Amino acid sequence: MKLGRNVRIHAFVNLYGCEIGDETGIGTFVEIQKGAKIGDHCKISSHTFICEGVIIESGVFIGHGVMFINDRYPRATNEAGQLQSEDDWSCQKTVIKRGASIGSGVTLLGGIIVGENAIVGAGSVVTKDVPADVVVAGNPAKFLRRVSAPRTVCSAGTL
Amino acid sequence: MKLGRNVRIHAFVNLYGCEIGDETGIGTFVEIQKGAKIGDHCKISSHTFICEGVIIESGVFIGHGVMFINDRYPRATNEAGQLQSEDDWSCQKTVIKRGASIGSGVTLLGGIIVGENAIVGAGSVVTKDVPADVVVAGNPAKFLRRVSAPRTVCSAGTL
Amino acid sequence: MKLGRNVRIHAFVNLYGCEIGDETGIGTFVEIQKGAKIGDHCKISSHTFICEGVIIESGVFIGHGVMFINDRYPRATNEAGQLQSEDDWSCQKTVIKRGASIGSGVTLLGGIIVGENAIVGAGSVVTKDVPADVVVAGNPAKFLRRVSAPRTVCSAGTL
Repeated sequence: MKLGRNVRIHAFVNLYGCEIGDETGIGTFVEIQKGAKIGDHCKISSHTFICEGVIIESGVFIGHGVMFINDRYPRATNEAGQLQSEDDWSCQKTVIKRGASIGSGVTLLGGIIVGENAIVGAGSVVTKDVPADVVVAGNPAKFLRRVSAPRTVCSAGTL
Repeated sequence: MKLGRNVRIHAFVNLYGCEIGDETGIGTFVEIQKGAKIGDHCKISSHTFICEGVIIESGVFIGHGVMFINDRYPRATNEAGQLQSEDDWSCQKTVIKRGASIGSGVTLLGGIIVGENAIVGAGSVVTKDVPADVVVAGNPAKFLRRVSAPRTVCSAGTL
Repeated sequence: MKLGRNVRIHAFVNLYGCEIGDETGIGTFVEIQKGAKIGDHCKISSHTFICEGVIIESGVFIGHGVMFINDRYPRATNEAGQLQSEDDWSCQKTVIKRGASIGSGVTLLGGIIVGENAIVGAGSVVTKDVPADVVVAGNPAKFLRRVSAPRTVCSAGTL
C-alpha cells in the first residue's frame, strides 16, 4: 500500500494494496482493494467500497455508501462448480476524472468513465459514461443539466 | 456525546458528538456525526450513516444502509484547490418526525422533512418533503398511498 | 453458529446464530443474523446485511452493499408506544436459489424468491419474485432478458 502525505484514515477500514494520494481523507467502514488508485485531495466517505480496477483522480468527492463494480456478470462459481478465482475473471476499469463528485448511495457499473467536474446525484445507478461538466441522476442515471464550472460555494461533505 | 437511559449500541460503530435518547438501539457499522440528534425509542439499523444536521424524533425506525446527506453540491476541494473545510460549507437540515419509518437502502437528500408516521419504501431516493401518514417509494420517491394510523401489527425490524 | 469447512471470513464482521456452508467467503463489514442460512461455495461481499429469514442456496454470489429485509411494515414501537419486540413481528422469508447472482447495491423486499441462476442487476430494488434464468434490473426490478445457462466465463467478483 502506498500512502501520500497527510492521508487521514478513520476507524474500521479495510485497505490493502492500493495507492492513496496526498491530503486525501478516508472515512469509516471503507474498503479499498488492491490495485485501486486514488489521487490527491480526495474525500472518500464512510461505507464506500472501491474495487480493483478503479482509478480516482485528484480532487474527487466520493459520497457515503458508494459501490464500485469491476465485473459485468459476477458469479460465485466457475463452470466446474468451484469457487471462482482470478483466472475466471477479467477486471473492468473505471475512471473518475479530476474534480468530479459522486453522491451518496450511488452504484456504478464497471467500465465507466465519469468526466471532469461531473456530479452524479445521490442514489443514482450509473450504467454508462458521464460527460465532463454535467449533472446526472436517477436509475439509470440520466442527464439533468450542465454545470458551468466547479462550484465554488459548496460543501466539504462529510467523512 | 449525550446518551439516554438504556441505549443499546452494537459492535463497530462510530458515534461522536451526537445525542441519542432513551431506549434507542444503534446497529452495527453505524456512523452518527456530531450535532445529529436522535430521540427516544428509535431503532437505527446496521450500515446506516447519519450526518450533522439530522434530527430524528421519537419512535422512528431507520432501516439498514440508509444514507443521510447535508450538502447539495458536495465537492472535495474549494476554489483555491484545497480540501474543503467547514468554512466552505453550509449544512442542510433534515427532520424525521415522530413515528416515521425509513426503509432499508434509502438515500435522503439534504433539507428534507419526513412527516409523522410516514413510511419511505426500501431502496427509495427521497428528493423532497414527505407528508405525514403516507407511504412513498421509488427513485425519486413518489406517493403510493395513505397510512390511516401507525400500524399496530408490524415488525421490530432488525438491528 | 454453524460454519462449514474452509469458510473464509474477513475483518469487521458481525455474525451470530447463522449457518454458513463449505468454502463460502464472507467479506468485510458484513452482518448476518441468527437463523439465516447460507450454502456452500457462496460469495457474500462486503457491506452486506443478511437478516433472519433469508436462505441462500449453494453457489450464490451476493454483491457489495446488498440489503435484505424481513419485515413489510417496519416500525420502531408497538401500539403501546414501547420498543417493538419479537412478539410484535412476523418474519418474512426470502430464498435465493442455487447459482443466482445479486448485484452490488441491491435492496430486496421481504418474502421474495430469486430463481436458479437468475441475475439481479446492480442497484436494483427487487419487489417481487424473480424467475430462474433471467436478468432483472431497475427500481423496481423488471425483466431484461433470459440467460441461457450459468455463465462460464465470468468473474469471481470481489470480497
